[in-house]
Amino acid sequence: MTQIDLNADMGESFGPWVMGNDSALLNIVTSANIACGFHAGDADVMAGTMRLAVEKGVGIGAHPGFADLQGFGRRRLTLSVEELANLTAYQLGAAQAMARAAGGFVRHLKLHGALANMASEEIAIARACYAAAAKVQPDIVVMTLAGTAQEAAAEELGLARAGEIFADRAYNEDATLVDRKLPGAVIHDAALAGPRIAEMVREGAIITATGKRIPTQIDTICLHGDTAEALDIARSVRTALADDGVTLAPL
Amino acid sequence: MTQIDLNADMGESFGPWVMGNDSALLNIVTSANIACGFHAGDADVMAGTMRLAVEKGVGIGAHPGFADLQGFGRRRLTLSVEELANLTAYQLGAAQAMARAAGGFVRHLKLHGALANMASEEIAIARACYAAAAKVQPDIVVMTLAGTAQEAAAEELGLARAGEIFADRAYNEDATLVDRKLPGAVIHDAALAGPRIAEMVREGAIITATGKRIPTQIDTICLHGDTAEALDIARSVRTALADDGVTLAPL
Amino acid sequence: MTQIDLNADMGESFGPWVMGNDSALLNIVTSANIACGFHAGDADVMAGTMRLAVEKGVGIGAHPGFADLQGFGRRRLTLSVEELANLTAYQLGAAQAMARAAGGFVRHLKLHGALANMASEEIAIARACYAAAAKVQPDIVVMTLAGTAQEAAAEELGLARAGEIFADRAYNEDATLVDRKLPGAVIHDAALAGPRIAEMVREGAIITATGKRIPTQIDTICLHGDTAEALDIARSVRTALADDGVTLAPL
Amino acid sequence: MTQIDLNADMGESFGPWVMGNDSALLNIVTSANIACGFHAGDADVMAGTMRLAVEKGVGIGAHPGFADLQGFGRRRLTLSVEELANLTAYQLGAAQAMARAAGGFVRHLKLHGALANMASEEIAIARACYAAAAKVQPDIVVMTLAGTAQEAAAEELGLARAGEIFADRAYNEDATLVDRKLPGAVIHDAALAGPRIAEMVREGAIITATGKRIPTQIDTICLHGDTAEALDIARSVRTALADDGVTLAPL
Repeated sequence: MTQIDLNADMGESFGPWVMGNDSALLNIVTSANIACGFHAGDADVMAGTMRLAVEKGVGIGAHPGFADLQGFGRRRLTLSVEELANLTAYQLGAAQAMARAAGGFVRHLKLHGALANMASEEIAIARACYAAAAKVQPDIVVMTLAGTAQEAAAEELGLARAGEIFADRAYNEDATLVDRKLPGAVIHDAALAGPRIAEMVREGAIITATGKRIPTQIDTICLHGDTAEALDIARSVRTALADDGVTLAPL
Repeated sequence: MTQIDLNADMGESFGPWVMGNDSALLNIVTSANIACGFHAGDADVMAGTMRLAVEKGVGIGAHPGFADLQGFGRRRLTLSVEELANLTAYQLGAAQAMARAAGGFVRHLKLHGALANMASEEIAIARACYAAAAKVQPDIVVMTLAGTAQEAAAEELGLARAGEIFADRAYNEDATLVDRKLPGAVIHDAALAGPRIAEMVREGAIITATGKRIPTQIDTICLHGDTAEALDIARSVRTALADDGVTLAPL
Repeated sequence: MTQIDLNADMGESFGPWVMGNDSALLNIVTSANIACGFHAGDADVMAGTMRLAVEKGVGIGAHPGFADLQGFGRRRLTLSVEELANLTAYQLGAAQAMARAAGGFVRHLKLHGALANMASEEIAIARACYAAAAKVQPDIVVMTLAGTAQEAAAEELGLARAGEIFADRAYNEDATLVDRKLPGAVIHDAALAGPRIAEMVREGAIITATGKRIPTQIDTICLHGDTAEALDIARSVRTALADDGVTLAPL
Repeated sequence: MTQIDLNADMGESFGPWVMGNDSALLNIVTSANIACGFHAGDADVMAGTMRLAVEKGVGIGAHPGFADLQGFGRRRLTLSVEELANLTAYQLGAAQAMARAAGGFVRHLKLHGALANMASEEIAIARACYAAAAKVQPDIVVMTLAGTAQEAAAEELGLARAGEIFADRAYNEDATLVDRKLPGAVIHDAALAGPRIAEMVREGAIITATGKRIPTQIDTICLHGDTAEALDIARSVRTALADDGVTLAPL
């Protein structure tokens, strides 16, 4: 019987500023990627988010990013591999402690924003981050994007790995994401999103915009919850998978 | 046979800015209180300091402070007990991860600067920080100042505790430190500092400026290394204790 | 003919995080107190807010606070008078430049959060901030709270001063604000708020909860816009004053 | 009679961390490029540096950089042109205010670190920064590197411009700097550095490593003061120019 994880970014509020709808999302997902205070979140936001995740039985992940609150970790920063390793270890450690203080534990790691994009493109970047995480927590599960340097680095390092696809993004023929600027790149129709993901999971393949199948290890579906539409898509994916008899469970 | 720990603050450089003489100090102390990136230090500085401490067999401590780099954690900030708990847990977690990545582990926790001063005065503040640390690492040893709310909080919580005295500060009749602004408050003479501390350790008591003995649990001596004079005092204390047959060892 | 200014805090978003409803508020107020990047706001948010204020003919004020984004400048921080002077000058300068780049200019200064509270209580704090502002911009108008050390410092320094009352707060018999924790401290009823303020302006007096009149120089009314209720109160005040024939205009 | 400016970066301490030897350098240079709190410096450091510069009659420049204290503004960050404009305007405004509070004024602007490098390569980046500075202070003098996009942008915008050469760097045949990794790239010999710069100034040309002359507008010489060697080179340049009868004066 197939088992799939549903993940979403969370804990992205900061100080007095609220972002997202974490409590709604925590009823839908099985794993939460929790910001670690560098690109979003702070110790207090982390504590609250960890507590909620533990209460709801949602798996906890560290979601490290660049130390760029103003840019939300979405602006590329040129760092050395040592700097990348250290920022990953530091943020993972902070997440572990906040999880433990809330009665939980960190299960997975997913890179954020520009750091994730750069790690998709350059294996040296993915390797630096993942190797540092594994030193801190050898049994960490890294969430990796299909066909990217993230995946290659995780395999090279022999880490536990969860292959991820996006619930609301169209795929090119080579399994990369359709550029956000192109029409159809982002899926807005919840009625469509759920069945499409269910089909990919059934077939164990990414289905491209033209219908091509690219066999892929699918362990987790990336959802969003920052808009009403995103929440509807998240619910649609959850329902479609459940209807297919897929077990939804943390990694 | 008496065993004593010698501790000093370390890893207080930040980015391009160097502070202190960590490699010299690491040859003298048996425990390092390593800044966690909030009042000083950053992930890269922590990585380097942890590595050196592991190499030299020096015990590693987390040294959390207020998130105030510009003020070096020395300016008082009014936080809630939840905020205090969370900043302690976060920084301890980061330190644990950086220690683990360097092949070591965190053994103790010592509060920094204004946070330490406030925790000496108000038991609610000490309790918030120590309870959070114990949730993250139940076997943590907290370094506490004799006769302060730090000590009371650690005892109330039933934590492993290391009583600390200062190598270079004079004591009042009630075991508090002589105000830095008063003459004689800070000991500058290395020839005097070593024997004075050795005597306190022999007698298991703080010796005040007037010669009064206040029985105190002395587990660790706080040294400094930011000036040539401070390094001389540190060496003098180390020598005097060794001459007395005291074993110098991490907590 | 009476002329009154309506002011509100603005530009309190930060990076990806939105706060308040600045464009709605800018249609109601005549002066905007714009955050300067220390407790809220950043160079990009400031640029956008300044541009909008210039477009709408709203007077621009610098709104400096403590360098504490996470605490939104609401947590007390113990700084020296030199540090207070420098943080005020720095933030005022940044605001002047952003205003100039948007085709406007800074007209007034209003302290934020914990800094404002501390400056209400201790004249040395208010003096440090206002004197620094006056060195940077001698014709600056400082917004001061009636009967506080803010007012005393501005008078002592001989600065242009705008006396401020709150649209949504009840007053004690000594002109201080009723503690937020007490019932009736905050006015929630828009239908009541407008006429109450109009009466104070007509009488040139703060009207306390018991109806006592305390003659006060009233130049500006502090409004909020972070909730639907707050916006309703703001509109009610604007309407009530306009109905009284009061001219609403920037300082 | 030739007049030349000698400039150096200054005010690069931060909070408790000291960098450089500003008081020694201020006796040698005629212009100071003062860090604005984003990559180094803070409001207190700026206040102290501005005061010293005013006392010594040294011209004051704003030295804006990326908001990356840990990386000292030396790590490349990908920002939009709006973000670049805003960070320049903000930092220039802060510098103007701190200069004014110290009884001085900002005369020039020089970009720092990675921002300067990127502005040398991409005219859109230089243009964004310089245009923003000119909006804030139309008579600002921008220091630009010969033959780079900095120079082109300043000319395109019609700004007052000071052409800069380096006291301690060798030049390639196309007027670019010899890569720091190559032998001879950095000049360490003070006895050589002074006469070499004096010759370039006499000839109004950059002299390359092979002796080729590239006619260049030379208005200011960039000095360093972070090491004893650098201070010696700075003094040597000052002496050699003075011996040539060159007037050393701020822009």
